[in-house]
Amino acid sequence: MNALEKLKSKNNEGKFICVGLDTDINKIPVHLRKMDEPVLEFNKSIINSTVEYAAAFKINFAFYESMGYKGLSALENTIKLIPEDVLIIADAKRGDIGNTSAMYAKAVFDNMHFDSITVNPYMGEDSILPFLSYKDKIIFVLALTSNQGSDDFEKMKLVNGLFVFQQVIEKVKTWNKNNNCGIVFGATKPEELKQNIQSFDKLPVLLPGVGAQGGSLEDVVTAFKQNGRDNYIVNVSRGIIYKSNNMDFYKAAENEIKALNNNVNKLLGY
Amino acid sequence: MNALEKLKSKNNEGKFICVGLDTDINKIPVHLRKMDEPVLEFNKSIINSTVEYAAAFKINFAFYESMGYKGLSALENTIKLIPEDVLIIADAKRGDIGNTSAMYAKAVFDNMHFDSITVNPYMGEDSILPFLSYKDKIIFVLALTSNQGSDDFEKMKLVNGLFVFQQVIEKVKTWNKNNNCGIVFGATKPEELKQNIQSFDKLPVLLPGVGAQGGSLEDVVTAFKQNGRDNYIVNVSRGIIYKSNNMDFYKAAENEIKALNNNVNKLLGY
Repeated sequence: MNALEKLKSKNNEGKFICVGLDTDINKIPVHLRKMDEPVLEFNKSIINSTVEYAAAFKINFAFYESMGYKGLSALENTIKLIPEDVLIIADAKRGDIGNTSAMYAKAVFDNMHFDSITVNPYMGEDSILPFLSYKDKIIFVLALTSNQGSDDFEKMKLVNGLFVFQQVIEKVKTWNKNNNCGIVFGATKPEELKQNIQSFDKLPVLLPGVGAQGGSLEDVVTAFKQNGRDNYIVNVSRGIIYKSNNMDFYKAAENEIKALNNNVNKLLGY
Repeated sequence: MNALEKLKSKNNEGKFICVGLDTDINKIPVHLRKMDEPVLEFNKSIINSTVEYAAAFKINFAFYESMGYKGLSALENTIKLIPEDVLIIADAKRGDIGNTSAMYAKAVFDNMHFDSITVNPYMGEDSILPFLSYKDKIIFVLALTSNQGSDDFEKMKLVNGLFVFQQVIEKVKTWNKNNNCGIVFGATKPEELKQNIQSFDKLPVLLPGVGAQGGSLEDVVTAFKQNGRDNYIVNVSRGIIYKSNNMDFYKAAENEIKALNNNVNKLLGY
């Protein structure tokens, strides 16, 4: 299965939640911190308890890079714990001139075997093309992000009448020759999603911002339903993995993603 | 010395060339490839032969990340080879929501002890602030990049009359409360530099695009001279480190940076 097929298959099973593995050694339960590989142990428990319910896992590179070699090891070993049929996203927000982006793509796809990556569009098409040459992957291009700073540039209006993030979406559609482009669209403000969802066409969408950042799962699911769309995943990181800080944190994570799935399925009328 | 003092001190000595360590194992001389740590051996030779003439070294993370653990080791050991008084830039183009950018900043500044980093402004102020809290560093924010893709978004005109990259420069000036901001400004087209240089105020400038990418060192130096400005570095990567592919590659690199410095000093009237 290629990356898009993995996503579609999970959506067809009513699974739309992406579990964000933003694993911070200072936030995991105390009893794990004494272990040899606390981050990996934490991820293993979270993956085992949520994989049945998850549409995807997203690994936030910064949290692993901040730990040096141990982090790289935890990252690589975490990937191995996730079954072949589940989409794994490298949340790395890379992007550079072509010969450099090709090296980032090699690291993430050839060496680490991720299914997907998040990339930053600021430097334009030639900074994204090396990623797009991997036809079986999904390249999620940042359009509108979920943070306050999205006001600074993403939501500036261009003379052509579009906001910068809308211009990105238009460009991404022209880059989608291999049918392997997606977009990141923040879910913090429901009206923004409603106003723009028709412009996405069939691009897969990764939506951050639900949970700790204030967005509503109901609003997202309703907007996609009303537009007859699937091929999307709603990322929840802290809201799942740090739901409890006790010995049974993994059980709390499982209960949380089950509850989220139930909400989604009720809204979809399953 | 903080990062800005290191830059100023080198500029005062007539040194404006940043050596870009985009070290690719497939491009280094064949005789090195049999060694245990070919990338590190290559970097050591390049650093030893150019450090006397260099204003800074820039380490392009993608080239090291593409090699996994060996790359991380080569990267960390390369940093140790560069003397304390020479600015070392992490060319990583990072940027994410605040709690994630804080992790990237930790990796690059606390763990790896870089003096400086390149960051991507797309996600706005809160994605940059965690880097800016390191007061002794220089945070080079991408404004105008040297690649063709800069046409796609950076050079789109906003309704306020500015290009997106000009809006970035204006914002960076408001973020410069700790006097630790800089900008990246591509040197491929001299008229762009001439038209915008006055808007930079006193921000330090990292200029890629000279050499393999087609920009002219003379144009850059002349533009800064005419504006009475220093605090800038011109990056040259492939043009120095791959000047020769023979046993004496390091000597060719040394001769190249000496020739570049001579050009600069002639233009500056030293």
